[in-house]
Amino acid sequence: MSLIVNTPPPPYYAVIFTSLQSDNLEGYVEMANKMFELAQQQAGFLGIESAREEVGVTVSYWSDLASIKRWKSHSEHLLAQQLGKKCWYTAYKTRIARVERDYGD
Amino acid sequence: MSLIVNTPPPPYYAVIFTSLQSDNLEGYVEMANKMFELAQQQAGFLGIESAREEVGVTVSYWSDLASIKRWKSHSEHLLAQQLGKKCWYTAYKTRIARVERDYGD
Repeated sequence: MSLIVNTPPPPYYAVIFTSLQSDNLEGYVEMANKMFELAQQQAGFLGIESAREEVGVTVSYWSDLASIKRWKSHSEHLLAQQLGKKCWYTAYKTRIARVERDYGD
Repeated sequence: MSLIVNTPPPPYYAVIFTSLQSDNLEGYVEMANKMFELAQQQAGFLGIESAREEVGVTVSYWSDLASIKRWKSHSEHLLAQQLGKKCWYTAYKTRIARVERDYGD
């Protein structure tokens, strides 16, 4: 999988997830890998770009809002979200955005 | 400045910049710091979230498209963009997106 996602021509959607991690990361890496595998199997999933330093910035791309909504309410993803809020993140923000234009290779 | 930007209620805009760095990073850090300082002085700038591992993911937030356009064509920023393309990045993608919804603390 390419590090820079080869998205189709706009419009499509981006979910921008920014987070600060806690000191308790037990189970985090396993869950992150599992969610990455699972997301790739979802209808409408276009790809993901992610990096973490002081803050984690993860952008996943989707073909439409309905696909984002389905993924948000996927049972295994719901569990991951709950553990994230409760254990792994001290703060986070999720933004749903419509990509209107893009350029660059 | 907060690591997770305290953006106003949607709608507002996000510029998602994803990049792969080259081995020639001469002058990069100085320019990145300068651009960060300069961006903060621009009308419509709301904040920035950024991290780099294998890939760099930087999301800047803006109140409207006109502010993004002004910043893109700012003379000092134009020079930075040219140096980025020519020297510092082996690949990059810029996406302009309208944030329609957000949640989390």
